[in-house]
Amino acid sequence: MAVAAENQSQPPQNDLPYVLILKPPAAFSIFGDHFFHSPKFQFLKAFESPLPLSQFLLTHAQSVQAILTSASGSVTADTIRLLPHLDLVVTTSQGINHIDCSECRRRGIAVAGAGTIFSTDCADSAVGLLLDVLRKVSAANRYVKQGLWSSQGNYPLGNKVLGGKQVGIVGLGSIGTEVAKRLEAFRCSISYNSRSKKPSVPYTFYPNVVELAVNCDALIICCASTDETHHLIGKEVLSALGKDGVIINIARGPIIDEKELVQCLIKREIRGAGLDVFEHEPDVPVELLALDNVVMSPHNAFCTTESLEELRKTVVGNFEAFFSNEPLLTPVPLDDLPHLSACSW
Amino acid sequence: MAVAAENQSQPPQNDLPYVLILKPPAAFSIFGDHFFHSPKFQFLKAFESPLPLSQFLLTHAQSVQAILTSASGSVTADTIRLLPHLDLVVTTSQGINHIDCSECRRRGIAVAGAGTIFSTDCADSAVGLLLDVLRKVSAANRYVKQGLWSSQGNYPLGNKVLGGKQVGIVGLGSIGTEVAKRLEAFRCSISYNSRSKKPSVPYTFYPNVVELAVNCDALIICCASTDETHHLIGKEVLSALGKDGVIINIARGPIIDEKELVQCLIKREIRGAGLDVFEHEPDVPVELLALDNVVMSPHNAFCTTESLEELRKTVVGNFEAFFSNEPLLTPVPLDDLPHLSACSW
Repeated sequence: MAVAAENQSQPPQNDLPYVLILKPPAAFSIFGDHFFHSPKFQFLKAFESPLPLSQFLLTHAQSVQAILTSASGSVTADTIRLLPHLDLVVTTSQGINHIDCSECRRRGIAVAGAGTIFSTDCADSAVGLLLDVLRKVSAANRYVKQGLWSSQGNYPLGNKVLGGKQVGIVGLGSIGTEVAKRLEAFRCSISYNSRSKKPSVPYTFYPNVVELAVNCDALIICCASTDETHHLIGKEVLSALGKDGVIINIARGPIIDEKELVQCLIKREIRGAGLDVFEHEPDVPVELLALDNVVMSPHNAFCTTESLEELRKTVVGNFEAFFSNEPLLTPVPLDDLPHLSACSW
Repeated sequence: MAVAAENQSQPPQNDLPYVLILKPPAAFSIFGDHFFHSPKFQFLKAFESPLPLSQFLLTHAQSVQAILTSASGSVTADTIRLLPHLDLVVTTSQGINHIDCSECRRRGIAVAGAGTIFSTDCADSAVGLLLDVLRKVSAANRYVKQGLWSSQGNYPLGNKVLGGKQVGIVGLGSIGTEVAKRLEAFRCSISYNSRSKKPSVPYTFYPNVVELAVNCDALIICCASTDETHHLIGKEVLSALGKDGVIINIARGPIIDEKELVQCLIKREIRGAGLDVFEHEPDVPVELLALDNVVMSPHNAFCTTESLEELRKTVVGNFEAFFSNEPLLTPVPLDDLPHLSACSW
């Protein structure tokens, strides 16, 4: 915050190279536009212009070498084609499925992301949500805060132990691996579903997510949101998970068929859910609001004071490196797509 | 539950040996009196008699060989002296500070407890509360459930990362050790205060709890409640912990000076607290009910469906072993007191 406040007083530096922003990253709404400020470049804000985007891009086509985007700001092939000097796209997210990476690769445009900055925070949140759903932390807190302990006596039973549970991780990328490490310490048995078996890990691999769900007490969704993973978790997987099963999603909303999930939760066809992400954020299905077996957070699983400061350094550092002809801090290897890391900002 | 329901239909078996119960264990209020039922003994319930306790004990002095108690039911030297044939006290708790163990040792009365049944559940809860306070799981859940995400936008920042935090454990018994193991997986640095340095653990030892607090971001109370630990955590320790510090208590309420803690939380002299236990349960200081930096649970950190079933087996198993002249399942070695394990029921 100190950095942002300090930079607000600086005069416009019009000789600095431009970084195009199509849509403001969420960090702007919290920290202000100067969160990613640097003395080595300046922002060109398409979203503040009254011009249609294509016209805006044509106007500035010669001066744009770099784009800053976030998970909610698509960088399409059409956009890229309008920018002949574009050499870099930096995204504040770990996932890059909102960027047309094929077009970037074809053009030789570098892409840099948040790297694994958010992985440990996401993993912590996943474990926090799992503990909350099984041990009813939020519900018990509500019980005490409403004065029910002294008036109605002992809290209703139903807490389930975490140790010994079979936990299935969908997407064993950097986040999923961190989740697994933590849950091993709680004596959970870990299995996973991923594009392919990972020879270096000791966990049981299921090539099919239904088969994984059949063999698990809890499913933790850590995969990227892609065409392949859209509604990957639907009725069949939820039925396979069963009435004692718990589902945690800290990846992306569309990976779960939300309507099916809501029905399963209402009918108690699964035990509970911990959800950080939803299909139509910030809208949450109203049916979930009153359910005690659902714990929710507003897509902030990845988001701590410390990780956002790390993000600021990484984003600014990537642009500064680029404009100084230095190697990028967190380049994304475009030959190895898609990436199974989901968290975003 | 099936076991309890089944046994309710059994007729009284008056030729069975008696197990005296002075005060009903909490399990009775949830599962009914038959939770610990066995075909090998029957309960003698002092708490159902209109007689004064001493008179009740005198009446049954010749027939009582064993007592079932819980953390809230003291077994004093006076009681023990009225029971010349008493040979066994079984408590549903892990802690045994409510039993006069000196008198038991003197008389050669065996004591059996819950062993380490509750250690992992307590440790899970401690981590759950710590994650909740740092990452605001309950508060974020409330935010979403109140519809504030869609109406007021992104959740206010302030979540703190868990990784890299210095966590101090007060009382490195079975629960504290389980907490430490879990937090290592979250990349926390562990230090501890205990009666003595434990040569077998790699964590930093502080002989003084104030010194531990000075060097920690979070304190987790896992020690037994004894005369020595009464109000161990007072103003001095809380000040040493400081305004970014977090305190978690899953041990016993009286270990913390609750009035001082409430003041520190109100004045934000510490960052937050996760409290499963309180000085005057089930009463909770009203000042805490509205504080967003406090997460509470109703003394159920230890309490899962699975651990209570394990408790039932252990309690019944100890009595059945005793009445069959077999070795106890979970004898407490009375030569090695006090024990640094706190959770109870």
